[in-house]
Amino acid sequence: MYTNKYFKYTPTEIALEKALKHIKPIEDVEEVSIDKAVNRVLAEDIVANNDIPPYDTSHFDGYAARYEDTIEASYETPITLIIKGEIKPNTIVDYEVKAGEAYKISTGGYLPKGANTIIPKETTKIINENKIQITRKSKPFEHVIKAGEDYRRGETIFKRGRIIEPKDLDLIAYMKIRSLKVYRKAVISIIAVGDELIAEGNSPHTHMISNLIREFGGEPMDMGIARDNIEDIASKILNASMKSDLIVTIGGCSVGSTDLVADAILSIPNSQIIVRGIRRVPGRQTSFAIINGKPILMLPGLIQSMTIGFYTLGVPALMKLSNMNTHCKKMVIKVKISRRVKVENMLPFERALFGRIIELEDIPKVELLSGSSMLRRMIIESHGFLIIPPFKREVLEGEVLEMNLFKPINLQ
Amino acid sequence: MYTNKYFKYTPTEIALEKALKHIKPIEDVEEVSIDKAVNRVLAEDIVANNDIPPYDTSHFDGYAARYEDTIEASYETPITLIIKGEIKPNTIVDYEVKAGEAYKISTGGYLPKGANTIIPKETTKIINENKIQITRKSKPFEHVIKAGEDYRRGETIFKRGRIIEPKDLDLIAYMKIRSLKVYRKAVISIIAVGDELIAEGNSPHTHMISNLIREFGGEPMDMGIARDNIEDIASKILNASMKSDLIVTIGGCSVGSTDLVADAILSIPNSQIIVRGIRRVPGRQTSFAIINGKPILMLPGLIQSMTIGFYTLGVPALMKLSNMNTHCKKMVIKVKISRRVKVENMLPFERALFGRIIELEDIPKVELLSGSSMLRRMIIESHGFLIIPPFKREVLEGEVLEMNLFKPINLQ
Repeated sequence: MYTNKYFKYTPTEIALEKALKHIKPIEDVEEVSIDKAVNRVLAEDIVANNDIPPYDTSHFDGYAARYEDTIEASYETPITLIIKGEIKPNTIVDYEVKAGEAYKISTGGYLPKGANTIIPKETTKIINENKIQITRKSKPFEHVIKAGEDYRRGETIFKRGRIIEPKDLDLIAYMKIRSLKVYRKAVISIIAVGDELIAEGNSPHTHMISNLIREFGGEPMDMGIARDNIEDIASKILNASMKSDLIVTIGGCSVGSTDLVADAILSIPNSQIIVRGIRRVPGRQTSFAIINGKPILMLPGLIQSMTIGFYTLGVPALMKLSNMNTHCKKMVIKVKISRRVKVENMLPFERALFGRIIELEDIPKVELLSGSSMLRRMIIESHGFLIIPPFKREVLEGEVLEMNLFKPINLQ
Repeated sequence: MYTNKYFKYTPTEIALEKALKHIKPIEDVEEVSIDKAVNRVLAEDIVANNDIPPYDTSHFDGYAARYEDTIEASYETPITLIIKGEIKPNTIVDYEVKAGEAYKISTGGYLPKGANTIIPKETTKIINENKIQITRKSKPFEHVIKAGEDYRRGETIFKRGRIIEPKDLDLIAYMKIRSLKVYRKAVISIIAVGDELIAEGNSPHTHMISNLIREFGGEPMDMGIARDNIEDIASKILNASMKSDLIVTIGGCSVGSTDLVADAILSIPNSQIIVRGIRRVPGRQTSFAIINGKPILMLPGLIQSMTIGFYTLGVPALMKLSNMNTHCKKMVIKVKISRRVKVENMLPFERALFGRIIELEDIPKVELLSGSSMLRRMIIESHGFLIIPPFKREVLEGEVLEMNLFKPINLQ
């Protein structure tokens, strides 16, 4: 048993690496109907089960013909074609176009045998029901979508790990796939800690964290509030560890006399504290442990500290659990600072500053919000946070920095 | 009755303005528990029901004291304070600090009467349970969050129209609000049109559009597939108009012999076509009508045309219906083009090109994808589209243009 419950303040990158080492992506797979699959993580490759389109297809309402028959056509010497029939979209026919013939065809219709060009309706002169005149030479496969031009049979369209989007469903439904294999959602239990919360009968932070978990594709499980005593905390953690993939505790992980979460964890056999504090403020108390291999994220109880802690270790952990491996990267964008700000920084800690995007110029312009880490206003009014390195004492107007967004931009 | 079912190709901006004139924001309000409120649109202002915090609050674990008592304190001449008791977080006490006294206090504890500074635990020397020594002068209200510093009683925290986010719930729960008034979701019925879809028993586009509607906060209602005849289309539209706030038809709105949606609409008494075609390709067939005041969006049936039509008129309509008035703006970002592309443009039409963000540099770098408007690949692989004006024949490498994202960035 590793008993160091005292703070070490690991550099953030290393803390993240250490924590993620103990996160195993979920392997359980479930099948959902395609209309319930949006935002779920695909657990199989989706391969084109046929050429798409399956046959050469008309891109216009017009006539399917042989381009060879059109070579001599001009305004002065129009060519007459005999219409042999009509072809509707997506319908397989047994027709064959011979010299001097054509078939009326709709957009999406499959070309009959022998046809190798589409003559748009607008460019023809209709003589009667069975005859048209053309006045312009066609090109081979003009206005034709070739079989397999969109996707070739056997080609992987969606890779395992893709987060399904509405626009993916069109092709999936077209291929007559009715359900998809997706990974089970990660179950994240939340334990709020503090006698004062029990007195209030309410843990506001739990509402925020559980809905953030939902937004990042996890399934929150509210385990209620633990009293400020080791036994209660430990028994709730032990209980949660049997029901969830990751445990999040809120509060009780600092150095005060009622900060007992680390002790509670260490009172459980087979537990180990992996990260005890990170070099980032607010949120430096954020810690990470395992009991019987089950990961526990300890978040501090002040709103801003909790938020930074959750985004620093919690979101990447949830992403990895959920098989959304590269998703985190899409949370960082470059922004331009709207006005100079002095940074109250302290070695060896990075400083997280909350930023509000106030203008979407070429590079989004961001106003930095400041105020005590107990205030909720900065969280409510900001769109993300910027990490200022420990030695940096100010941020200049117009400076371009990276911002971590609270909501990822979807760039898969 | 306005009978013009023939194309006019309205400039996109004007088409949008005309269509939105016929969209009335939903006024129906429903109450949902706060944990079901995320992504719903707030139908009330949320006002601080008290100062937040309600009293001067300690930002540290330490001692609540009178700063006047600390003025003479120095390392050489420490000052002794008598500890009169302890104050837990969020607990209202009736204590009063007198000269030479202090109360032990936790982070989040309310200052007792008379106290006007917090002395952090780390800066004191504990003599015994009832006595501490301090060696440093405090400042007035040092480490104190003043009552109302976060929000003042009566201040509007969230305005009607806000799309609720997880981070909003912390404060809402803190104020003991258990449910929120939100606008009813807009119900959007979807009618796919085409005999070939009936033959297939499947409308792939419906899956995409209905899930997009869901993603933008609406409630899709799949009304099935209409045959290519006026009566069937008209009866499905009439039925849908009684059950939904907006009707979306897919397919059947071009100029072919089986394009009967416009005729079907005009066969219904009290109908009017408001926009017949837009000056944007793909998607130029996109049209807009009303029957008995109920709006109908006609989308073309080819995948790319449908997508552009839906984002051009459908998304803004859905946003306005849903009371998300300014949300659309957040869908446009500046991007830098990765390589020169020739644009096949045709007056008077704008050209929509699909773009894939390939690098998040200062300005996101975008690759333009090209291919027939029947191909799904461009939709699947892109993150949005760029609108190229009719006269513009090429896009240069490094050029900075606006891109409409498929998924909005949340900047409220």
